[in-house]
Amino acid sequence: MSIISLTTDFGHKDYFVGALKGKILSEHREAVIVDISHEIDLFNTVEASYCIEASYNSFPKGTIHIIAVDSERTDEIQHIAMQWDDHYFICADNGILNALLHKKLAQKMVSINIHDRLQKNASDMDVFVAVAGHISRGGLLNVIGKEIFDLKPKNTFSTVLSNDSQTLIGQIIYIDSFGNCVTNISQKQFTDLSRNKTFEIKVKNKKITRIHRSYADFPMVDSRNIKDYEGDFLALFNENGFLEIAIYKSNPKTIGAASTLLGLRFRDSIIIEFKN
Amino acid sequence: MSIISLTTDFGHKDYFVGALKGKILSEHREAVIVDISHEIDLFNTVEASYCIEASYNSFPKGTIHIIAVDSERTDEIQHIAMQWDDHYFICADNGILNALLHKKLAQKMVSINIHDRLQKNASDMDVFVAVAGHISRGGLLNVIGKEIFDLKPKNTFSTVLSNDSQTLIGQIIYIDSFGNCVTNISQKQFTDLSRNKTFEIKVKNKKITRIHRSYADFPMVDSRNIKDYEGDFLALFNENGFLEIAIYKSNPKTIGAASTLLGLRFRDSIIIEFKN
Amino acid sequence: MSIISLTTDFGHKDYFVGALKGKILSEHREAVIVDISHEIDLFNTVEASYCIEASYNSFPKGTIHIIAVDSERTDEIQHIAMQWDDHYFICADNGILNALLHKKLAQKMVSINIHDRLQKNASDMDVFVAVAGHISRGGLLNVIGKEIFDLKPKNTFSTVLSNDSQTLIGQIIYIDSFGNCVTNISQKQFTDLSRNKTFEIKVKNKKITRIHRSYADFPMVDSRNIKDYEGDFLALFNENGFLEIAIYKSNPKTIGAASTLLGLRFRDSIIIEFKN
Repeated sequence: MSIISLTTDFGHKDYFVGALKGKILSEHREAVIVDISHEIDLFNTVEASYCIEASYNSFPKGTIHIIAVDSERTDEIQHIAMQWDDHYFICADNGILNALLHKKLAQKMVSINIHDRLQKNASDMDVFVAVAGHISRGGLLNVIGKEIFDLKPKNTFSTVLSNDSQTLIGQIIYIDSFGNCVTNISQKQFTDLSRNKTFEIKVKNKKITRIHRSYADFPMVDSRNIKDYEGDFLALFNENGFLEIAIYKSNPKTIGAASTLLGLRFRDSIIIEFKN
Repeated sequence: MSIISLTTDFGHKDYFVGALKGKILSEHREAVIVDISHEIDLFNTVEASYCIEASYNSFPKGTIHIIAVDSERTDEIQHIAMQWDDHYFICADNGILNALLHKKLAQKMVSINIHDRLQKNASDMDVFVAVAGHISRGGLLNVIGKEIFDLKPKNTFSTVLSNDSQTLIGQIIYIDSFGNCVTNISQKQFTDLSRNKTFEIKVKNKKITRIHRSYADFPMVDSRNIKDYEGDFLALFNENGFLEIAIYKSNPKTIGAASTLLGLRFRDSIIIEFKN
Repeated sequence: MSIISLTTDFGHKDYFVGALKGKILSEHREAVIVDISHEIDLFNTVEASYCIEASYNSFPKGTIHIIAVDSERTDEIQHIAMQWDDHYFICADNGILNALLHKKLAQKMVSINIHDRLQKNASDMDVFVAVAGHISRGGLLNVIGKEIFDLKPKNTFSTVLSNDSQTLIGQIIYIDSFGNCVTNISQKQFTDLSRNKTFEIKVKNKKITRIHRSYADFPMVDSRNIKDYEGDFLALFNENGFLEIAIYKSNPKTIGAASTLLGLRFRDSIIIEFKN
């Protein structure tokens, strides 16, 4: 019984996700299919990459992750399958997996070449489903593709550090449905730089000088109640290890959220200044 | 094989629900996971409470219901697990389960205390998943928590009856995606009060004097066709036993709905007047 | 182990889909339930019909498809169950299945008559779930209904061909979440008419004279890069065999889509002119 996760930009209105699941069950009746997201911003490989990086590890080893975002095969873009950290990933070579490879080497990576073996008119999803079925039956990646050792290079956001290591500039890489803004500044990078220093996180016109251990981690002094802090800004490292700017009990539709109240958008900068 | 239902405010865009399911399957590979809703209004425990009350009974006895709305544990809010009507419920003690307890006593209720046994940095969801895994393996609630006999009191909406029992005031407690407006007036309360009396349901500037047995339950007289009634207001008791104000064949995006046409919102009042 | 697919207009906010799944699992614990869509436009039987026609075939033979759109039983509308192309379909006789019957005869079709055998107050969904359970246990349709040989007639969109076979007029029958506009012009009809002819597809103020084999099927000449074509209009036959008007890498929220840029809406016409 294999677990197959799905991350797509197909949305929930259309029949696309249902048809994909029907194909998977036709190929592999015992598969347990889990949705990660079908609301990735259309063709947004950065969002897809963040979602898979943040969630793959919650699944058991051996899980097969199908990522169908911008997955049409062209002369320039190949379909790939990768074994990495004992998980399997199937997608197009469009930058989605590059962030994972920066963390750790792949156990095996192939450019899928079974297209000729499928029926004419096979869709990209037919290819992904056939590969997932092969893997779930214990098949080797070499059988369905040609080994590769590199992914197509992809410009990704990276943090910038000043020469004196006093200023670190990061970007918003993901905004969640609570309006929390995730940056590309990792807990490791921050910890290395902040040793014995004070810091100031500048995001738009706001300054934050403390890292929360949890959303509710406010000082309970002067007989203040936790409810008094609703709507307050805070910064914390999220489960995925990235610095996140949030509002306590945010709601983009009502009281507002970090994204709406600060006008933060995908790619916006945030600056951290360290002082001795 | 346990059935585990999920009710959250996590939304469908992010990877949160997928990661939660991955954790459940990591803990308990055979679990059958069913989504009740992931679109609860953020931090809205009243909506969460209504959804679980309205749907738990459609599931088999023994189902484990995880309700992750406003579930961060603080000094004031504990995580709880409850066995009630042969179902299990796991959530924070934030008012979500109070409505159930008003109907019937719990078979067992505990304040979860396994937090120290989990790895450091365990999230609220890690706690809920561990408890669900324990229950699904047949474990006792006492093993993962300290028995409690009361929930934190919570102000909830309640109906108000005039001294002469002629006027009943209720509130809108839930608006569904058809724009139907559910009130907290139960069929039992209405039936007790309306015996041998006529009644008038006043909602904004509208008066309704008849209860439908179904949405389509219009008088088929004078060669009227059922299609002639599309857009008409009506009142009925929904499957959950609460009075609902609706429009026949409503669509908030096109012809309108009870919510949009009457401007009804969460917490708005409706008045029933009974006459001998 | 039966596969049961669900197509509804229940939306994702409310507990309705979860409750339906709970009822299915109560009736048939081993069922594998797959969502096709729960975001069908409310009461829109044309959309429901298109979604089921486009996706049923991705599921294994024997799958039971529950279609709960406008499914309230009235004096005029019966509940029906149909065996067709080795799949099972359960819905109201409201036009949803008519398109399938135009393609191929049903193997068996019944008007469901078990309502009296269910508990009083059984909902439409209780009826559908009982029928699905019966079928999944290998039961015959005759046992739960009275055989019928026709569906209620339903006005459906049809293409119009000029007497000289030079002009074909079709309609937009579905707009997907990418803003792609699906018409009711089939590949077969187009192929029959276009033999040895040139053609011009007119949609609003746009003319298209070529059919793409895939979204990315642009001419790679003059050192043009595939990215140069992002935002270009195109026409292709989709997986379901219908002519679709699309934009390469469309996004209704950002760069625009066929629906938004041409102002195309459900039921709008498109015209194809053929020339010798």
